[in-house]
Amino acid sequence: MKSLVVWHTRERCACIVMLPPSWLLCAYESRRKQEGSLEMSITGRSIADIDTPALLVNEERLEANIQRYANMAAQNGVRLRPHIKTHKTLEIASRQLRAGAGGITVAKLSEAEVFSAAGIRDIFVAYPVIGREKAERAARLARESHLIVGVESAVGIQQLSEAAASAGATIFVRVEIDSGLKRTGVAPEKAEELCRQAMAAPGLELDGIFTFRGASFAGATSSDPQVLGRQEGELMVALTTRLREAGIPIKEVSIGSTPTSSGAVLVPGVTEVRPGTYVFFDRMTTGAGTSTYAEIALSILATVVSRPAPDLAVIDAGSKTFCGDVIPEKVGLEGYGITTDGKSGLVERMNEEHGIVRLAPGFSPQIGDKLTFFPNHVCTSVNLSDELLVIRDGSVKDAWSVAARGRRQ
Amino acid sequence: MKSLVVWHTRERCACIVMLPPSWLLCAYESRRKQEGSLEMSITGRSIADIDTPALLVNEERLEANIQRYANMAAQNGVRLRPHIKTHKTLEIASRQLRAGAGGITVAKLSEAEVFSAAGIRDIFVAYPVIGREKAERAARLARESHLIVGVESAVGIQQLSEAAASAGATIFVRVEIDSGLKRTGVAPEKAEELCRQAMAAPGLELDGIFTFRGASFAGATSSDPQVLGRQEGELMVALTTRLREAGIPIKEVSIGSTPTSSGAVLVPGVTEVRPGTYVFFDRMTTGAGTSTYAEIALSILATVVSRPAPDLAVIDAGSKTFCGDVIPEKVGLEGYGITTDGKSGLVERMNEEHGIVRLAPGFSPQIGDKLTFFPNHVCTSVNLSDELLVIRDGSVKDAWSVAARGRRQ
Repeated sequence: MKSLVVWHTRERCACIVMLPPSWLLCAYESRRKQEGSLEMSITGRSIADIDTPALLVNEERLEANIQRYANMAAQNGVRLRPHIKTHKTLEIASRQLRAGAGGITVAKLSEAEVFSAAGIRDIFVAYPVIGREKAERAARLARESHLIVGVESAVGIQQLSEAAASAGATIFVRVEIDSGLKRTGVAPEKAEELCRQAMAAPGLELDGIFTFRGASFAGATSSDPQVLGRQEGELMVALTTRLREAGIPIKEVSIGSTPTSSGAVLVPGVTEVRPGTYVFFDRMTTGAGTSTYAEIALSILATVVSRPAPDLAVIDAGSKTFCGDVIPEKVGLEGYGITTDGKSGLVERMNEEHGIVRLAPGFSPQIGDKLTFFPNHVCTSVNLSDELLVIRDGSVKDAWSVAARGRRQ
Repeated sequence: MKSLVVWHTRERCACIVMLPPSWLLCAYESRRKQEGSLEMSITGRSIADIDTPALLVNEERLEANIQRYANMAAQNGVRLRPHIKTHKTLEIASRQLRAGAGGITVAKLSEAEVFSAAGIRDIFVAYPVIGREKAERAARLARESHLIVGVESAVGIQQLSEAAASAGATIFVRVEIDSGLKRTGVAPEKAEELCRQAMAAPGLELDGIFTFRGASFAGATSSDPQVLGRQEGELMVALTTRLREAGIPIKEVSIGSTPTSSGAVLVPGVTEVRPGTYVFFDRMTTGAGTSTYAEIALSILATVVSRPAPDLAVIDAGSKTFCGDVIPEKVGLEGYGITTDGKSGLVERMNEEHGIVRLAPGFSPQIGDKLTFFPNHVCTSVNLSDELLVIRDGSVKDAWSVAARGRRQ
């Protein structure tokens, strides 16, 4: 199998090479290493010598997390199509695919473009793509990749259809179902109509249905993520049965998040799960019981820059590092981050470049000391960062570019 | 006056040219235009044709805001040293300097490096710089720029002194005073000791004192920002008098934020104010009475991607665009953003790529419609963005790179 890749940056002319997809990620990785960029000077440093703030990836934990979810999906005969919004890096997507993932999930077309250019050619944009310019970009992408796009309106179907037909491309579409989050997606009883519109639309091929609701939404009847995952699966499989009885060829039933996937994979008829956060986990998944502190693979390294009081330290990482898009109280957490021992210091207040840390009795770090923290919501911390430093045996093994950082169009 | 600039990116070898500083920003701007990059294709587009989400800058309002604060400072004989954390772009810093600003303020050294490389050579890092690697970077920067750095600990003074002395550089330092925010800075009664340490330290030159507290902090005795600005000024000038009486040569008394600067400039003895947000303003400054909706110069353009209910719209901009680092209730706001008419739609819920907008009665945008919103906190919205689109007369005039986005080390 051969594949087309176009390197086109501001600095280089475009060049076109024909390579099998599996070579492309390797080519990308070696190209970056040849550039003499930051990771060359930082490789081999001990954690104490890393400038801060920095995001550290514990490689052993990352590998274990990737394997855990790969095994869970494989053992239940369900495809794992991980959402890359958590890491946004080519290197981690590559590891997920090597561990058995069947394609990737993204939220936005511009993310799909990054991963497709790197040779990952089976991509689900689990988001309602709207707008003629975006539809045209989707059609272009569909000519080089197996591209699946979410639809939940007649407008979306029509725009994608026109662009695909005009480009001579096939865009696979999945109808989004609102299973309780009340965000995007149609009510189950509206699904048949939309499926028929997609089936009739030139350039589109109906691929199935999908939903997202996570483990915390108004109206949840359980606080157990596994129970919620089962319910989500049963709801979607029941709808699939009704649609098939009405003559609609639903192939894929795609559901599940990091907390709910373990329940979702148990429901016969579910064909795919799309967890994202599991590669790193964070304080939220740990608070919800889906992970333990010992499994969290991403931490924030910060320096103590001030000691305003015996029980307070100020670190050089604030909301430009931790983000803080989630209101802690709403997800059952206190503060915006915690030291990686789970107890010594709590980030209780933040400004953009300041984290005010409440220290546990007996813990008294000095100005200049470096501390590691787990963030509440790892996805948005990563989106604020240009690179992730990969740590093995206490020193930097590699630096990975957050290639799809900020891609939101 | 000649100046040294080093272009050093991953893609290019370093080259060194000798140019007067005023040429450097022009050179930067024309260099970017020659690159055939995104802004070439987007220039001239009407707002309706801009892909979303996008950050739009109203150029007329931007110019008026820059002029308003420049006038306020000039009329009171106080230096305006704007904080660039709000915009992070070379083009806006250049406009601020042309309007009379005396240097710029940044939070982190890596921001200073970006602006120094572009020819802005009078920079105050209003943050306690801690760590040997950072001290060495500060010393390098001080050899090419007039660099002022915040200090508030003996450790910070010692590290900067060693690095500066070793590099043969002079780093100007200002002692940070905690005037009530309880974040960084020493209590006023501790200032003399730290000033004496700075005076005695080789490679350092004591330049003055500074503080930041903004208009909302525990213990504020007024809700009027102008009153708070006066109080902040009086507190710092009284301390300056005591320090001078003790033989400490305080030159600069630097205070003030966007809401409090109007009061701060009125206090005799205050030499400098450091507002940042005023270039754009946002919902927070408007809620606090410092600006009006008609003055907010930055808006977020988003597309309606779903209409889940008659009174709800979902837009393609969520916390990866609006940020949401500020809890709305804590700053007296409702929701995370509002339509730019101030009333038709309120972003009441967000996920990373979804904004759930509550629509006012009678407002019923269709899927595909583009809407503009004011964010709560513009600084963090900008930090999530790679570029700002400059709008004049309803179409895109230019695209400015957020050159110091993500610079937090």
